[in-house]
Order: sequence, then C-alpha cells, then structure tokens
Amino acid sequence: MTANGATISNGPACPIPISEYPRILLAHGGGGKLSQQLIQKMFVPQFKNESLGLLHDGAVLRVEGDRIAFTTDSYVINPIFFPGGNIGELAINGTVNDLAMCGAIPRYLSVGFIIEEGFAMENLWRLVHSMQEAATYAGVVLVTGDTKVVDKGKGDQIFINTSGIGVIEKGVDIDPRRAAAGDAIIVSGNIAQHGIAIMSVREGLEFETTIKSDTAALNSLVHRMMATYRDIHVLRDPTRGGLASSLNEIADSAHVGIRISEENIPIAEDVKGACEIMGFDPLYVANEGKLIAFLPATKANEMLSVMKSHPQGKESQIIGEVVADHPGLVVMKTKIGGSRVVDMMSGEQLPRIC
Amino acid sequence: MTANGATISNGPACPIPISEYPRILLAHGGGGKLSQQLIQKMFVPQFKNESLGLLHDGAVLRVEGDRIAFTTDSYVINPIFFPGGNIGELAINGTVNDLAMCGAIPRYLSVGFIIEEGFAMENLWRLVHSMQEAATYAGVVLVTGDTKVVDKGKGDQIFINTSGIGVIEKGVDIDPRRAAAGDAIIVSGNIAQHGIAIMSVREGLEFETTIKSDTAALNSLVHRMMATYRDIHVLRDPTRGGLASSLNEIADSAHVGIRISEENIPIAEDVKGACEIMGFDPLYVANEGKLIAFLPATKANEMLSVMKSHPQGKESQIIGEVVADHPGLVVMKTKIGGSRVVDMMSGEQLPRIC
Repeated sequence: MTANGATISNGPACPIPISEYPRILLAHGGGGKLSQQLIQKMFVPQFKNESLGLLHDGAVLRVEGDRIAFTTDSYVINPIFFPGGNIGELAINGTVNDLAMCGAIPRYLSVGFIIEEGFAMENLWRLVHSMQEAATYAGVVLVTGDTKVVDKGKGDQIFINTSGIGVIEKGVDIDPRRAAAGDAIIVSGNIAQHGIAIMSVREGLEFETTIKSDTAALNSLVHRMMATYRDIHVLRDPTRGGLASSLNEIADSAHVGIRISEENIPIAEDVKGACEIMGFDPLYVANEGKLIAFLPATKANEMLSVMKSHPQGKESQIIGEVVADHPGLVVMKTKIGGSRVVDMMSGEQLPRIC
Repeated sequence: MTANGATISNGPACPIPISEYPRILLAHGGGGKLSQQLIQKMFVPQFKNESLGLLHDGAVLRVEGDRIAFTTDSYVINPIFFPGGNIGELAINGTVNDLAMCGAIPRYLSVGFIIEEGFAMENLWRLVHSMQEAATYAGVVLVTGDTKVVDKGKGDQIFINTSGIGVIEKGVDIDPRRAAAGDAIIVSGNIAQHGIAIMSVREGLEFETTIKSDTAALNSLVHRMMATYRDIHVLRDPTRGGLASSLNEIADSAHVGIRISEENIPIAEDVKGACEIMGFDPLYVANEGKLIAFLPATKANEMLSVMKSHPQGKESQIIGEVVADHPGLVVMKTKIGGSRVVDMMSGEQLPRIC
C-alpha cells in the first residue's frame, strides 16, 4: 500500500483498542459483539447523527415534510447460488425487508455490482434476471446502478450492494426503542433455515431433504399486519446473528427485559437435526425471510391469526413477552423447565452468510 | 461454485453474445464501450423503467410529490491512499457529485464497507475519519451503513459503496437529453488530474512535482452556478472514461453533435507531460473534482466568470458548443487546425481508478 495519505489530518486516535484488535477479523462483520463494537465505538461517534445512533435496519429521514426510510446492505454470500436462492435475489429481498422493518413501503432500489474479472457472463445474466423477478414480486423498481470490475484474485466472483428508499405512511411508528413491558413477541415462522442451507452446502453435508434458504420479501406480510393493527411497536428481521442477536439489540435499545419460551420457537425438524450435527445453536443462525414483531399483548392473538393466513407467515408463533425486569437481558425458559440468559453472539458463527 | 440454483427460472437467453464475451473483463467496469454494452443490453432492458433508461449519474424520483435524486457508486480504487486523497474521501465526494450533477442538493448518504480480513484497524479509522471530514465539508449526513468482512485473499483491503439522496428544487431540470444546438459547454478546470495521480503512484513513476488527485465535492460550485442561472441544461462529472466519454454519452442521449476546441481544454503542464510519458490521451483520463455544464451560449460568459470566482472552478473554460450537425458525434478542432472525431473509449485504459 502506498500510504502517501498527504491529506489525512492528524485527527483523534482510533477508538478501537489497537493492542487488542490491530486488524479486522471476520467477526467484525459477523453481526455479533465485535460488529457492535466497531459500530458503537467507531462509526456512530464519528458519523454522529440521530438516525445512525438508532442502529435500526434503515434510517428514517424527513424529506420536504415526508418521512422516508433509507437503507443499505452489501451481499458477499458464499456460495452465490444456493438451495432456495442466489445472491441477486437475496440482495433484493434483504433490502426490501430492511425497509419493511422500518414500517416503510419499499419503492426504489439501487444496485452496485463489484465483479471479479473472469466471472462468467452467463452467471451475471442469471443473477440479473433473478433480481428483476424478485423486484417485480416485491413491487420495487431498480432505478440506478453501478458496476465495477476488480482484477482476478482481488474479489470473489461477485459482491452486490443494494440500497433502498421507502415511504412511511402517517401513523406508523416502528422503532426498536418502543418495545415496552406488556408487549408480546411474535416470530413469523421457522427459524435458522437460511444459515443452515448455506452451511450444509458449504460443508458438503447431505441431509435426507435439502434444506432451502427462506429468502423472501416480507413487505406484503408487513402490509397486511399493519392493516390489522397499525401501531406495531417494533419489527426486525433476524438476519446475521439470528433471533438471539436481534432480541438482544432490541432489549438494549429499549432498556427492557425479554422473556422467550424455547418450546414456542418454531423450527423445522430437519433444520433442528442439522444444527445438532453441525454444532450450531439455531437461535444464532441467520434468517432471510422471517421477522419478529413487538406489539401490545392484547392484540397478539388477532395478529397471529392474520400472519398465519399469509404465505410468508404460516408458521408464526408467539414466542415471548417484554418485561420490566432485567433490562437489557434476554432470558429463555428452556424445554426442561430451567431458564438461561441468551446472550448476544460473541464470535463469528457463520462468515459470509449474506 | 455450487450452481445448485434450483430457483432460477429458465428465462430468456443472455443478451450479451456469449461467444464474444463469455467472461467479465476489466473493461466491463471501465466506463467505456464494454461498460455501455453491459448496461444497455443487459441491465436497462432487464431492470426496465424510465429512470434507469436515462443513464444519468443518478435517478430522479417522485416521492409524495417531491423530486429527489438517488444514486449509488462502489469504490474499488487501488491504491486506497493516494496523493490528494483516499478511497473514503473519494466515496463521499463521488456520490455527492453524482447528486449535484442531477441538480440536487445532496442530503443523506449511506455507507457499505466490504473489508478484507486482516485489514489494519488503524487504516479503517483513518478512512472513517476522513469520510466524516468530507461529509461535513459537503454538508451531507451519513445516516445508515453496513459492514461485511470477507476472507483474506477474497477482497482487496477495502471496497466502499456509498449511495445518496438529494432534493431537487423547483425549476431545476438538469437532463442529458436537454443538450441543445446553441448550448455552450464549460468545463470547471484542469482535466485528467485524478487518473494521472493514481497511475503515477501505481506505476512507481516520479515527476518533478507530485500530481495530486482533484477529488472534491462540487455541490457548492453547482449551488452558486444555479443561483446565477437556474436553467442549466446538463451537468456531468467526467469520471471513468474522462471528458471524451461523458461528451459522447451526452451527444448520444440528446441526439446532438458536439464540437470542442483542443486549445481551450484546460490541462496542467505536469499532467500533460505525464500523459505523454505514459502514453495516455488526457481526454480519456478520469477526473474526480471537475464538471462539465451545458447552457445557452448567451449565458456562458456570465456563468464562466461566476465559476472562476469559486475555489472549485478557478480554471474553468468554455471548451465548445452543441451543434445540429453530426448528431451523436463529438468532433474536436485540433491545435494544428485539423479536426478529429473523439470516440467513446473502447478498451480499459485505467482499471480501478475509482
């Protein structure tokens, strides 16, 4: 590297302890504790502004009086074609979902490709075609884009960034800080499918049935949920770091306690078996087509039945509640009757899962 | 690759002739003819919508009655620190400029990092700090972000995507299709600095003076230009592919001819010398802090003096005009009195220049 950096001013020192982490580790991108440290200690204080501080899936902005949501995600998943989907479809669905989790109606997406020299044109075409199908399904339009090519060996086939804009209708106020004692917590279906689908392919494992990624656009489900009860408090799609990390982030944002019940968490038998074989805790495994919703318990049963009637919500379950006790902690009642603290993921469980 | 792609439908065939280009080449990301082919034959027809078809630097969208501009760019420049700037600063300025070229006031930016495992934390910090300085200077806020880490050897230190949103005020109508016979063409200063700064470092060449990148935010200059004459027809920042490619794109969009005069094109002596030594035509070399403006010739002298009074426009020059003849062609009157067609760049002159 030619560190000529003549224009770099001698600013404040690096806020991440260099003695501890002199170099970026895979875990700094894994959605767990090291990711949080990087965001909380470096990015948020440096890029300080109200929107970024919330650490939501997207930023909620005012533009000429209207509220819009704005979000970005880069996709570096390996392999790029996997059971149930591909990196292109994932890049559309993931960004659509981040907007939907802000309570926004997703409208416009941008696409940035970083392609490794030598990538097969036919595969690019398959991805582009699949992205358009996913965009059509989700009702969004790809309005602007950029393509960069890097030398062979300086990338890994293809990385895709999608950013998105959505419009938030009046009366909608989804915010992780709104989780409140008395809220019920609903998850929209079987967890851990995406992560296990990727890992089983990557590790060359074969199960009796092929486990498929759950990648899906959730905006239609959210639309129906909001038509049922507009004042949902929190929505979140538990991607990197899984259900456990998302619940911890929300407990932390709202300074509330969360209680969940293991026996109510929906998980398919084959996924459960694969987790046992590979030694993964499904609570920490990524999902790409599931959401968790927080809303007043009095509305939970009605919402549950609405969700179950939607294709993306058929296996929805009420998995727990928000409590005033133990703020910041997620506690799970286990199947054998005990209880354990479900911490945020610390290491890097599944690199390049999305 | 595990091409399991079970969900890929058998759609239409790839529109790029596979026999000719079975694999992605560096030139597909170079801003020249192959880039254009990829965009025009694959992306635009597939992601078809009015905004994308315009091939502007950003999309102009209507959100609840307001017009906003939306743009995205990935930065893969090598080296990441270079004379006059770094990849972080470039990523802010580049996206700010794309918004300004739509006539928008840049407001909000997203940042997506793709970091190679092992990247020095201190360098990440230097980049983040520099990005914040650039954002503050340009008056934009970084509101949302994403960080991915890829395994060592699967990336190249750091790639940065920035997407941005700006607001377009009433009465502003910047559009490449508006270039019209009778328009004057102004360039805001010396060309080819960025590309030559990068290449001289990369090639290990030493010149008498260090040539610095011209990376700079242009929104303040544009603001002053629009205060002088709001109905500017076209703005464009000639980045990848340089001045020649931008002029060709505009001639093509508006179906007009363009005439420029070689002796009026501003270029610094050291940059001209470096181009001769390295064998580059400066018309095709990237700029990162310059713009070209098309406006009625009757307003050109007033605009020129306003631009010259701004720090980013001191060496502005009127370089040519739009004509009704030879639509789609850019013709240059050379210094020795001849004339030549200035074509769009065909190959890949400078890979990973931004």
